Amino acid sequence: MTSGDALVVSSDPLHPANLIPELCRSFYQLGWVTGTGGGICIRVGDKVYIAPSGVQKERIEPTHIFVLPYPQAPPSPHTDRVFLRRPALNLKESACTPLFWNSFDLRNAGSCIHTHSQHAVMATLLWTGPVFSISHQQMIKGVRTGGTGPALSYLDTLELPIIENTPNEEDLKDSMAEAMIKYPNAAGVLVRRHGVYVWGNDWEKAKTQTECLDYLFEIGVKMKLAGLPTVFNSP
Amino acid sequence: MTSGDALVVSSDPLHPANLIPELCRSFYQLGWVTGTGGGICIRVGDKVYIAPSGVQKERIEPTHIFVLPYPQAPPSPHTDRVFLRRPALNLKESACTPLFWNSFDLRNAGSCIHTHSQHAVMATLLWTGPVFSISHQQMIKGVRTGGTGPALSYLDTLELPIIENTPNEEDLKDSMAEAMIKYPNAAGVLVRRHGVYVWGNDWEKAKTQTECLDYLFEIGVKMKLAGLPTVFNSP
Amino acid sequence: MTSGDALVVSSDPLHPANLIPELCRSFYQLGWVTGTGGGICIRVGDKVYIAPSGVQKERIEPTHIFVLPYPQAPPSPHTDRVFLRRPALNLKESACTPLFWNSFDLRNAGSCIHTHSQHAVMATLLWTGPVFSISHQQMIKGVRTGGTGPALSYLDTLELPIIENTPNEEDLKDSMAEAMIKYPNAAGVLVRRHGVYVWGNDWEKAKTQTECLDYLFEIGVKMKLAGLPTVFNSP
Amino acid sequence: MTSGDALVVSSDPLHPANLIPELCRSFYQLGWVTGTGGGICIRVGDKVYIAPSGVQKERIEPTHIFVLPYPQAPPSPHTDRVFLRRPALNLKESACTPLFWNSFDLRNAGSCIHTHSQHAVMATLLWTGPVFSISHQQMIKGVRTGGTGPALSYLDTLELPIIENTPNEEDLKDSMAEAMIKYPNAAGVLVRRHGVYVWGNDWEKAKTQTECLDYLFEIGVKMKLAGLPTVFNSP
Repeated sequence: MTSGDALVVSSDPLHPANLIPELCRSFYQLGWVTGTGGGICIRVGDKVYIAPSGVQKERIEPTHIFVLPYPQAPPSPHTDRVFLRRPALNLKESACTPLFWNSFDLRNAGSCIHTHSQHAVMATLLWTGPVFSISHQQMIKGVRTGGTGPALSYLDTLELPIIENTPNEEDLKDSMAEAMIKYPNAAGVLVRRHGVYVWGNDWEKAKTQTECLDYLFEIGVKMKLAGLPTVFNSP
Repeated sequence: MTSGDALVVSSDPLHPANLIPELCRSFYQLGWVTGTGGGICIRVGDKVYIAPSGVQKERIEPTHIFVLPYPQAPPSPHTDRVFLRRPALNLKESACTPLFWNSFDLRNAGSCIHTHSQHAVMATLLWTGPVFSISHQQMIKGVRTGGTGPALSYLDTLELPIIENTPNEEDLKDSMAEAMIKYPNAAGVLVRRHGVYVWGNDWEKAKTQTECLDYLFEIGVKMKLAGLPTVFNSP
Repeated sequence: MTSGDALVVSSDPLHPANLIPELCRSFYQLGWVTGTGGGICIRVGDKVYIAPSGVQKERIEPTHIFVLPYPQAPPSPHTDRVFLRRPALNLKESACTPLFWNSFDLRNAGSCIHTHSQHAVMATLLWTGPVFSISHQQMIKGVRTGGTGPALSYLDTLELPIIENTPNEEDLKDSMAEAMIKYPNAAGVLVRRHGVYVWGNDWEKAKTQTECLDYLFEIGVKMKLAGLPTVFNSP
Repeated sequence: MTSGDALVVSSDPLHPANLIPELCRSFYQLGWVTGTGGGICIRVGDKVYIAPSGVQKERIEPTHIFVLPYPQAPPSPHTDRVFLRRPALNLKESACTPLFWNSFDLRNAGSCIHTHSQHAVMATLLWTGPVFSISHQQMIKGVRTGGTGPALSYLDTLELPIIENTPNEEDLKDSMAEAMIKYPNAAGVLVRRHGVYVWGNDWEKAKTQTECLDYLFEIGVKMKLAGLPTVFNSP
């Protein structure tokens, strides 16, 4: 056991180093993290737990987890990042790190999830402007204002900004932050032709909000393709 | 163990407090209860077992179950409800409670299931009137008249009322009851842009009828989108 | 243990009384036997093992299995059937029995599977005539001539008769037999608005052929809806 | 234990003889290898591990695995093949063997996967020419140049050759090799109306690239059917 391994060894199934592998297996079944894409990070107080990059997400082990201190300046580029614990294996830190950091710095989130769900990507192709929006769906009630605030009402129109993709994932940091500032009520940010980032106060709320949003992307796409309006003013 | 815990501790896998968590895990796989939505209640004689609200339905434990006495006046608003057992944790009672109660009071049901299945929601969007109807499908035979009566025949047209959604789930109580009275042969009630409530004499019959109805919503939607008629008079 | 229970108690996972429950759980995951519909029977020499009717197929136990002697006259109506073993529980024998018998009597099959797969049902709705046909698909090679003969070639056109549904499942016996005689090369029979029956020399071949046919129904439906031809003469 | 069994008996879950059965079960869940179709081979140095042909891929056991020496001349026809180990059971060697060999000989691959995924087949039907191509999708970054080279960039257009199917799988050998030579940057070869072959430096990279490509086939098909362009020059 190298120095720092104590940070990821626990018999508690709810310890972040145990939860991240379990949740990633579940996300794989949902089609969110196939092909090494996507992932989840969990922040507990001043420690951030992150899965490695470029690995099969359904086969992560607790010992593969990186631990970073929080706060620190948005940790990009790589060379500036401070770690409390790195895996012994030759694993790369997640390219999503600066994006996850946006959710901590701008929304005080405790967890952030990134998926490559095809429902999210199809939504960014059918909503060609800068915003995905849908109204009058019960699942809207499962999403919180800004991701960490009070729950939306059935009467609210859900809006999520869509930013353009960049060749390097880390380069999304600034445009994602801008979108979060411009749309303070949004619980996530869609990335065109790529996927979505969703956050919450803790892993449960990040996960259930990702489920609600993925549901809304899916049914929104179905509605568009069926010629049904997705936003309107009176039920 | 607090007072009342004996009501939810059992080594019998068919005890309602064990069944509800197991069934909710299965419903999650089917996409019926993602994002904390949906659920199931089971009534055995004078006791009603209900899962909590706003939690991940695939992670419920037996100790999270509420137990209410039956009969009691439709238990809404919250403050009037009587409980035989509340979880020690800070869990909310289900917002579906008054809706589940409709199935007990008006149909003498032993179990009621609520899903947010996208097939149900799409059906409510493509059947724009007050009724979903489909005929000449074998799966109609798996549904019972009124949910608790004799099985439908292949020659019967299945009809399910569709009620309009309300911002607060509990406010569906009266319109759901009206629809159940107006359509005494219906085994469930669809809620537009929200999901469906289905009941049966016991949990097996509630579950298999929900499966049959969900199948019929799904194939009905496929047929509509393919331009096929969904109801006609001679096979 | 009642008389006859020895016929369904075995520590061999490949014993029909153990296989049928396991396979039904798998078929449930595939959407073939939801809502109590569908099922499988296995014949080993002079014994036929059949699951009960009207139960949750994913929850069958070995002790729920019926055992019938073979040969016997097509066992319909119920009152004429001979059993080697009936479950102690109050279970009904399968309404599919006379249909399964067709596969034994007319094709010498060792196993027959019945599904309510939506792909099968959609195929019967989009192929409005008496035959489903598709050509130039690799999966055709996984299907055998008549279900129990040599494998089809990639150059063969796969044809499956479609019969009209009847209110009582047992009443399909004669039209299914007629279709099997008229289409001696068919490995199964589709039932319009209902599902499909597929057989093979043993349970493995019945199962893999059902998978191949279900795949062909699914892709055939996708092709039809996309405006692609499903049968043609030169690749 | 017959001579050679030591080659497939190991307590290491990452031994190829253990991995192949596990991965095939997972591929079955994804719909890649139903009906006995598809499979995976793993090469470790001078040994090639291959699953048998014509069996249920989700029920393979380590003792069913064939082991062949590498290098040897492309092992076709069957009679010329050299084996280090054959299963005791009456199992056939994989008809994919010469195709897998192409990936070793022409790309120095360590693993090759063959699927009958419907997304691959639909892609070969909607891309009617000799090449499948898609651009501006994040998942392109999960695919490597030629399958074993450096990763593609988001700005690269992914191209995969499509060859025409033949009645005998082994007869695809030459046209697959020609396509691999003509398209040196392609990480796989699609076979029209049949499926896809994908390879990588090792089983992890073969598997994750198959996931990325399958994702791209699926979303490409969705985009085509929705009337969206799949290749263009400026994001």
